[in-house]
Amino acid sequence: MRLAVIGAGAVGRSVVELAGEYGHEVVAVADSSSATVADGSGAGAGVDPDAVVARKAERGIVGDADPEDALAADYDALVEATPTTLGDAEPGFSHVTRALERDRHAVLANKGPVAERFGDLRAAVDDSDGEIRFEATVGGAIPAVSTVEDIEPGHVTAVRGVLNGTANFILTRMAAEGLDYDHVLAEAQDLGVAEADPSFDVDGTDAALKCVILANVLSFGAADDPADAREFTLDDAEVSGIRDVPGSALRLAAEDGRTVRLIGEATGETVRVAPRLVPENGTLAVSGTQNIVQIETTHAGRLNISGRGAGGPETASAVLGDVGRLE
Amino acid sequence: MRLAVIGAGAVGRSVVELAGEYGHEVVAVADSSSATVADGSGAGAGVDPDAVVARKAERGIVGDADPEDALAADYDALVEATPTTLGDAEPGFSHVTRALERDRHAVLANKGPVAERFGDLRAAVDDSDGEIRFEATVGGAIPAVSTVEDIEPGHVTAVRGVLNGTANFILTRMAAEGLDYDHVLAEAQDLGVAEADPSFDVDGTDAALKCVILANVLSFGAADDPADAREFTLDDAEVSGIRDVPGSALRLAAEDGRTVRLIGEATGETVRVAPRLVPENGTLAVSGTQNIVQIETTHAGRLNISGRGAGGPETASAVLGDVGRLE
Repeated sequence: MRLAVIGAGAVGRSVVELAGEYGHEVVAVADSSSATVADGSGAGAGVDPDAVVARKAERGIVGDADPEDALAADYDALVEATPTTLGDAEPGFSHVTRALERDRHAVLANKGPVAERFGDLRAAVDDSDGEIRFEATVGGAIPAVSTVEDIEPGHVTAVRGVLNGTANFILTRMAAEGLDYDHVLAEAQDLGVAEADPSFDVDGTDAALKCVILANVLSFGAADDPADAREFTLDDAEVSGIRDVPGSALRLAAEDGRTVRLIGEATGETVRVAPRLVPENGTLAVSGTQNIVQIETTHAGRLNISGRGAGGPETASAVLGDVGRLE
Repeated sequence: MRLAVIGAGAVGRSVVELAGEYGHEVVAVADSSSATVADGSGAGAGVDPDAVVARKAERGIVGDADPEDALAADYDALVEATPTTLGDAEPGFSHVTRALERDRHAVLANKGPVAERFGDLRAAVDDSDGEIRFEATVGGAIPAVSTVEDIEPGHVTAVRGVLNGTANFILTRMAAEGLDYDHVLAEAQDLGVAEADPSFDVDGTDAALKCVILANVLSFGAADDPADAREFTLDDAEVSGIRDVPGSALRLAAEDGRTVRLIGEATGETVRVAPRLVPENGTLAVSGTQNIVQIETTHAGRLNISGRGAGGPETASAVLGDVGRLE
């Protein structure tokens, strides 16, 4: 497929670098201020991935064209990899709907549109010959969305798990070293695991967005008529983060063979994210930046899937898996 | 889809019972000596699932027709759920190829044809408008095959895991209770976890067949030309079972924080099944009849998927997931 990659952060750049290995061709790339669009058309006429990535690293732009040119390029699927925004989820939402209006597909790594405007997005898909996919929005390399789709949402009663690597790294270190939150946060920031402003991760917002997306998949997937499906947004999630988990709580838990994890849970009716006690050697107690998703099914018991929940190539491989499913 | 279910053991019966919930209709069911075929055609004209299951339980047959009638019925997909046989993999192999010759799909729960005659099967698929799927042959409810397909076999370097619940139950109990193999085997037989003749499970044959199937998926999936793909059969697998694992080995392992699991591993070049030392609280040390599959990828690290590796409804849900993917 011919791909237009919108967003040139770690995920966008990895998609550009890996697309060829998966048999696809990148015909346009944009960041927020620049773009590059392939000259010709037909096989072999894509952009030069190495040149795009090098230019971004050296000059901070991907090319000399306007971002608008990349959106107007002749692609089969648009890859939306701009940063997640809340509320109206712009500009990601418009990028996706413009692709759908042209009957093209869209693959999202950006959580905003699927978490905050799922109903609007479904309506746009209904009016289009294009489809949307968004495996990369939940759990990085973990195939959470597609596994729920394969089981069929009507046969899934709940999805829960550890969906934020930064919060999990901090809790893991607090338990292992007997240190307090502030100390471990500073360490995580030094290592680049936590951002300078860690709120999005440690307050549970990121995990909650992922659970909201899963709740939308469950709710719309199980409804016979989309008009009957309940739409979830971040406002529907009950969220508490890990800032207030004291080191003493982890020490107390350890004495009882338990530890604390930031657990998110989605059903077709509720979304909840909160620190929870879990068995120290249990399935949910993944370490460091690992993520885990548990899928509760009506006929096949519980399925556990763990792996790398973030990272450029990891998330790009989820994007390219989605592109493969669109063919 | 209209399904013909061939085989009325635990898996076949569960497919008959659950198909309606997944939006499919069973139009024919056969066991080794009898069959029932729906009278009419069109929607709502399927067999009565409850009646078929009740008749099998009460009279040991599924109906008054000949098995041949079920194979000749007007179905969209044939579900092959007869017992796994080695060598020529008959009669399952012929059931599947007869479906393909009629340009119908086939979904296998029977490991024989995909483990012992994968090349012949691929050739039959190439000559047909029908497709084959076989998620249920590996790891019960665990989506091993479809996850490898989604990642794409060329980006998977190895698949390993615990793929036999009976052997895993025995090793788990030996470690927990400090008992020897013979003692725990007798207990497992009493509980119905092990068969009267447990060879297929405890000698590693069953796990090896699953790894052979995964090796075929990796080898054929990564080859540009199927003629270049290496075909695997059970003869290509290096297999040792758990009969000779002494209780003392488990006690020694436990002193070092380890335990023993029957680990199978497949790459595009090798298949190996053997008891291996693994960390006691590590990902591979699943308990009891649980299975786990680890997928090593080129760009997304390691993915772990665990869940119920056997059981009628669990395996039937894998079959019906495959049917959904064929639509």
